[in-house]
Amino acid sequence: MAYQKLTPRSENYSQWYNELVVKADLAEQSAVRGCMVIKPYGYAIWERIQSDLDRRFKEQGVQNAYFPLLIPKSFLSREAEHVEGFAKECAVVTHHRLKNDPEGKGVVVDPEARLEEELIIRPTSETIIWSTYKNWITSYRDLPILCNQWCNVMRWEMRTRLFLRTAEFLWQEGHTAHATREEAEDYARKMLDVYADFAENVMAIPVLKGVKSPNERFAGALNTYCIEAMMQDGKALQAGTSHFLGQNFAKSFDVTFLTKENKAEYVWATSWGVSTRLMGALIMTHSDDNGLVLPPHLAPIQVAIVPIFKKAEQLDEILSKINPIADQLKALGIRVKVDTADNMTPGFKFAEYEMRGVPVRLAIGARDIENGTIEVARRDTLTKETLPLEGIVEHVSQLLEDIQANIFQKALDFRTANTRNCDSWEEFKEEIKKGGFLMCHWDGTPETEERIKEETKATIRCIPLAGDKTPGKCIYTGKPSTQRVAFAIAY
Amino acid sequence: MAYQKLTPRSENYSQWYNELVVKADLAEQSAVRGCMVIKPYGYAIWERIQSDLDRRFKEQGVQNAYFPLLIPKSFLSREAEHVEGFAKECAVVTHHRLKNDPEGKGVVVDPEARLEEELIIRPTSETIIWSTYKNWITSYRDLPILCNQWCNVMRWEMRTRLFLRTAEFLWQEGHTAHATREEAEDYARKMLDVYADFAENVMAIPVLKGVKSPNERFAGALNTYCIEAMMQDGKALQAGTSHFLGQNFAKSFDVTFLTKENKAEYVWATSWGVSTRLMGALIMTHSDDNGLVLPPHLAPIQVAIVPIFKKAEQLDEILSKINPIADQLKALGIRVKVDTADNMTPGFKFAEYEMRGVPVRLAIGARDIENGTIEVARRDTLTKETLPLEGIVEHVSQLLEDIQANIFQKALDFRTANTRNCDSWEEFKEEIKKGGFLMCHWDGTPETEERIKEETKATIRCIPLAGDKTPGKCIYTGKPSTQRVAFAIAY
Repeated sequence: MAYQKLTPRSENYSQWYNELVVKADLAEQSAVRGCMVIKPYGYAIWERIQSDLDRRFKEQGVQNAYFPLLIPKSFLSREAEHVEGFAKECAVVTHHRLKNDPEGKGVVVDPEARLEEELIIRPTSETIIWSTYKNWITSYRDLPILCNQWCNVMRWEMRTRLFLRTAEFLWQEGHTAHATREEAEDYARKMLDVYADFAENVMAIPVLKGVKSPNERFAGALNTYCIEAMMQDGKALQAGTSHFLGQNFAKSFDVTFLTKENKAEYVWATSWGVSTRLMGALIMTHSDDNGLVLPPHLAPIQVAIVPIFKKAEQLDEILSKINPIADQLKALGIRVKVDTADNMTPGFKFAEYEMRGVPVRLAIGARDIENGTIEVARRDTLTKETLPLEGIVEHVSQLLEDIQANIFQKALDFRTANTRNCDSWEEFKEEIKKGGFLMCHWDGTPETEERIKEETKATIRCIPLAGDKTPGKCIYTGKPSTQRVAFAIAY
Repeated sequence: MAYQKLTPRSENYSQWYNELVVKADLAEQSAVRGCMVIKPYGYAIWERIQSDLDRRFKEQGVQNAYFPLLIPKSFLSREAEHVEGFAKECAVVTHHRLKNDPEGKGVVVDPEARLEEELIIRPTSETIIWSTYKNWITSYRDLPILCNQWCNVMRWEMRTRLFLRTAEFLWQEGHTAHATREEAEDYARKMLDVYADFAENVMAIPVLKGVKSPNERFAGALNTYCIEAMMQDGKALQAGTSHFLGQNFAKSFDVTFLTKENKAEYVWATSWGVSTRLMGALIMTHSDDNGLVLPPHLAPIQVAIVPIFKKAEQLDEILSKINPIADQLKALGIRVKVDTADNMTPGFKFAEYEMRGVPVRLAIGARDIENGTIEVARRDTLTKETLPLEGIVEHVSQLLEDIQANIFQKALDFRTANTRNCDSWEEFKEEIKKGGFLMCHWDGTPETEERIKEETKATIRCIPLAGDKTPGKCIYTGKPSTQRVAFAIAY
C-alpha cells in the first residue's frame, strides 16, 4: 500500500494539481459532465471556510436567507447587460415530468409536461432576489436589507477543472439594498475588506485588492471590486468579488422606496460572492510535490498523533502518555487526531498526513517513551525534531501559529518576487510568459485591454486600490495613464 | 401600524397557518411556481435546526460531503421500485444554452444545445451517491461510509404549501454503506433515535417512533422507520424518516466489497433525512392565534428587552439598568435583543415579538426604574408579572427552561388526549373525522390499508416500535393482527 507520488509541479503544474485534488481526497469528477463530488475531507475544509466567513458576515449585520434555485427565463433578460453575461451557457429546465417509456426502456420525458416558460438553474441570483425585494421595500425604514445565501449555482462551462471551474459549484452570494449610492458603495468596499482579511488571515493567501476594468466587470455592475491571488505557477486567480450594482437591478425590477422626504427613488444595490473556487486557490498557493499544505486555521485536523507500536501492550503504554497530551491540546481548541489504526504502517500514515496537508504530526514509539521524548514534524517545512514530552502542548500550540505565519510569508515573498514593473511593450510580451503580475501603465480603454489580451492572453486583473499612483504612459499605445494596473495570465 | 390579527385556528386552521407563516416573516411564495423564499427570520430558525442536528450527526461519526444536483435520467430507472416512486414529477433539464431571440424578444432556448441525455434535478440522491460509492468501496476496510449532505432537492408537487409541501425544499440526506445487514439496520434505527431525541428535546415536539407499512415505505427501501408528530388540528405529520435499503442500491449500481474472508458481497445501505418541513411541524405544534410560539432551544431571539421611554434621557437611564442585564444573559449563552428603535411604539413591538414567538419579553419603563422592577412576559402562557430587577438574570435563565418543558408537555398532553384505541369499523369511520391517532388492529395487508384509505383518507402513520403488543382482530377484515398500529389523516 505505498503511496504513488504526485507528478512534480516543475514537470507539469496542471497535472500536479489534478492529481493532488484526487489523492488528497478533496474532490472527484462525477458521472455528470462538469459536476464534481466534494469528498468528506474536501468538504470539511469548505465547512471551515463557510463557518468563518459566515461569522464575519453576521458581524457586518448580514442575515442568511434562501431564494429559489430556478429562475424564470424572462427574468434573465430584464437587465440588459446581465443577459449578455449570464443568460447563455446555463442549464434549462423545460419539462416537469417523466413517464415510463412506451417501448419499455426505462423512462422518457413526458412531452405533455412542457413548462409554459422555461426555468433556468441560477447562474447567480440578482434577478430572482430583486424581483423579491420589490415586495419587501416600500420605505427608507425597510433599508438597508443585508441578505446572504449559501447555495449551489450552475454555469454550463465547456472546459472544467475540479474546484477551479465546474458546471455546478457551491458559493455564497450576498445581496444588499440601500437608500443611498454612498452607503451601497461603502458596503461593497467593506465586504471586499472582509474577503481580503479572511483570505490573508485564515487562508494565508496574500491578495491584491483592486477594482476591475470595464472588460472584466460583472454583467450589470457599475464597479466590481476584487481580490486577486497569485498561484505558484505565476498565474492569477480571482478569489472573490464585490459588486456595486448602482440602481440597475432596481430599475429592471422596479424597486423604489419612499425617502424621509416622501420622494420615490430607486434602491441602490451590491452583491458579493466567494465560491468553492477558493479551494483551488488554497491548494495552488501552498501545496508542494508531496501533497497538500493546509494553513492551521483551516485544517480539519491540525495535529495528527501516530503511536509506533508492535504489540497491543505497547500501544496501551504509549496511549497512557499521549492521551493526556491530546486532551490538553483539545482543551485549547486544537483539532487533534490520535491514529491508533493497526492495519496501516506508521510510514503509510505519515505519507497520508503529508498528502492531506496536516500541519503538525507527532510520532512516539517505545524509545521515545524511555527517553521521555516525542517526534514533531512540520508539514510546511518538512522538518522534524525530537523534543521532550514536557512542555510539548505549549510548543505545538505555538508551532501552529508559526506555521500559519510562515506559509503566509512564503506566499507573500513569492508574490513580491513575481510582481514587477514593466514599461515597454516588447519587454511585456517576453515577461508575461514568465508569469506573475506585471504592473504597467494602461490608457484606460477597453480596446487597448482587448488587444493586449489577444496578443498575449494577459488581462488586467485589477486596478490596485493601494500603492503607486504615479502617472505614466500606456505600454501599448503610449497614451497617458493615471496609475499602474496589474496584468497577468489568469485562471 | 397596528398588527392585523390572524384568522383564528378554530375558524380556519389552514388559513391561520398560511397567514402565520407570512406574518411571522418566515417564508413567502416566490415568482416560481411552488418554490418558496425562506426569509431571514425563518432561515435563522432553520440554521439552528441545522447546527444542532449536524452536531448530533457528527457525534455518530457522520461526515458531510456534496454530490451533484443533477442526475442522469437513466440512473433513476436503475432501481426498479425507486423509479416508480421518484422518476415521475420532477424537473428535467434538456438544454444547456439560451440565445438571443432572432425576433428580438429577450432570449430563447437554443435548439442546438440539446443534451444527449436529459438530467433530472435530484428529488433524492440515492442513485447518484451509489454510483459514486461504487468507486469508493473495494474492501471491508473501506466500510462503513457515513456521509451526509445538506442541500436543496426538487419534486414537482401539484399542490404546494409553504414549508409543508414545496417543489424545492432544503434538507439533509444521510447515506451510509455497511458490511453487514445487522450493522445497517442498527444504523437506520440509531438515526431514528437521533431524530426523535432532537424533535423532543430541541423542537419540543413529541413524536411516535415506528416503522412504515409497505404502502408508505420509501421507494427502494426494505424498511422505513419514521417519527410521526400530531398537529393541533389532529392531523399527523411525518417529521423524519430513516430507511434500511438492504442491498437494493448496491445491486442496482453493482457495489460490492471483499470481506475479510476475501469473498465479494453486496454492500448494505441506509438513508435518512429531515427537511424544511420540520418548520411546518414546529409552527403547527406550538403556535396560537396570536402567532408563532417558539421553543427556547430553537428561538433566534430568546429574550427581547423593550425599554419604554418618551425622551432620549429616559432611554439612557433605562439602558444603564438593562444593558448589564442583557450582558449577563448573553454571558450565559442566551440570545438577547435590546430593542431601542424609536420609530415604533412599545405596543407595536410587543405585538411583533408575540407574532414572532419570542419566548420571553422584558419591558421596563420610568416607574419600574423607580421601583427597581421589570415586567416579564411569557409567550407560551401569555402571562405577565412584575418582578424585582434583583435576581432577574437567574429568573429568566430558569424561565426559558420552564417554557421549553411546558410547551413540550402541552403538546404531549394534546397528543395523549387525541390518541385512542378503536375496535370497530363503524366507530373508526366516525372517530377518524375528529382527528388524532386511532390505535387499531390491522391484518397486515396492503389491500386492507388501501381500502381504509379510500373510504376514510386515513393511512397507517406507523407501526409503533414501543407500546402495546397485544394481538387482536383487524378493524376492517376481522382477520388476526399482531399489534395495534397508528391510523390518522396526514399532511
